[in-house]
Amino acid sequence: MMARMSIQQRLESLGIELPVLAEPAPSCPTCVITGNLLYVPGSGPLPIEGKLPKGKLGREFTTEQGKLFSRSAGLEVLAVVRRALGSLDRVRRVVKLQGYVNATPEFEEHSLVMIGCSDLMVQVFEANGAHSRSVLGAASLRSNVPVIIDSIFEIAL
Amino acid sequence: MMARMSIQQRLESLGIELPVLAEPAPSCPTCVITGNLLYVPGSGPLPIEGKLPKGKLGREFTTEQGKLFSRSAGLEVLAVVRRALGSLDRVRRVVKLQGYVNATPEFEEHSLVMIGCSDLMVQVFEANGAHSRSVLGAASLRSNVPVIIDSIFEIAL
Amino acid sequence: MMARMSIQQRLESLGIELPVLAEPAPSCPTCVITGNLLYVPGSGPLPIEGKLPKGKLGREFTTEQGKLFSRSAGLEVLAVVRRALGSLDRVRRVVKLQGYVNATPEFEEHSLVMIGCSDLMVQVFEANGAHSRSVLGAASLRSNVPVIIDSIFEIAL
Repeated sequence: MMARMSIQQRLESLGIELPVLAEPAPSCPTCVITGNLLYVPGSGPLPIEGKLPKGKLGREFTTEQGKLFSRSAGLEVLAVVRRALGSLDRVRRVVKLQGYVNATPEFEEHSLVMIGCSDLMVQVFEANGAHSRSVLGAASLRSNVPVIIDSIFEIAL
Repeated sequence: MMARMSIQQRLESLGIELPVLAEPAPSCPTCVITGNLLYVPGSGPLPIEGKLPKGKLGREFTTEQGKLFSRSAGLEVLAVVRRALGSLDRVRRVVKLQGYVNATPEFEEHSLVMIGCSDLMVQVFEANGAHSRSVLGAASLRSNVPVIIDSIFEIAL
Repeated sequence: MMARMSIQQRLESLGIELPVLAEPAPSCPTCVITGNLLYVPGSGPLPIEGKLPKGKLGREFTTEQGKLFSRSAGLEVLAVVRRALGSLDRVRRVVKLQGYVNATPEFEEHSLVMIGCSDLMVQVFEANGAHSRSVLGAASLRSNVPVIIDSIFEIAL
């Protein structure tokens, strides 16, 4: 009988390392658990060589880069969830991803950008990673980050 | 004693025909049921003569057209919900509609656009169709569709 | 033994007066309670001397003004919640604030704008006011209001 892999083991087998999170400021938005739902604050992509990526899809960044940014924001989401729950094994499923893409008025490939984050969730949680999703092009985002992912998870209490 | 009409009968009495949905791609965002809530992926307006409407409110489209598009996106939502639940009679109420209107920076009639979808929900579900709602003007939307409706329903298990 | 202050008493001790709400139009979006969650329709800032503030962050309004507008929208939210529940003492916690900031493509201080509403919730509900949050820059908002707050509360049944 083969034991089921923990999510931490799966992350390792996939070669995925979650970022180390800074201590949250006390006044910062926080994760909220209500019933079986975990609401995660909007998360942006991780810094690259210490610098936050900044710019819009359709101008500074290509769709392919945007896909990497949405995956990167997904890694931040997972690190935040792990800290909130103690372990990612408490995630029963991904309920909802809502993507905000910092985009020009002409940009049309929002769904392709979101695939980066969506694929990450399915890689990590398999069938339980399938989720509801929506995405829109924002006129601007905080600190001019290219993408923000807002998310809801169902958890075991 | 008059039997209560099924939602399917009501749709017919209202002359509303829901669209035939394409088979969803396996990697696509999906409906998610958690507790009594059904999260529906963001839905856009149906194609007109095989072509997806494309453009912005305040430029290519008038508010009156936008209202029809938001109703049309609502029909897509209902078809998706019916497929997910087997029957629309399992809907206990519409909880939330969140509208993204593909709009110019000058556009101000987002609420009027949303009335198309809001009215549809009340027509179909009557008192149970009353919902919470928000709407914003997006800088751009996927494939340049004019409106996307994100939604949550309460369902009977 | 000191009795716990009611939220109404706390509002008074903070010098916060909630606005008198107009009668809602029957066709308007409404508050929805599902399980222990209260979904509140998107709320904008209160009128100033009878006139709704109109304009974009980064153009007509500074970040400091935006912060006041988001606090003002939060007051509207609280008034709507009080009407829906009868008393703010039924609020168990603030679950989620989602901010839409009417902003230029260059604006970057969305988080600072949101602090106005976030701080209000913590002032009023103390530890139960800590919430999950996301914010984006909208290309446009209804009636050109500078900010809209979408929110979810956990309530005692």
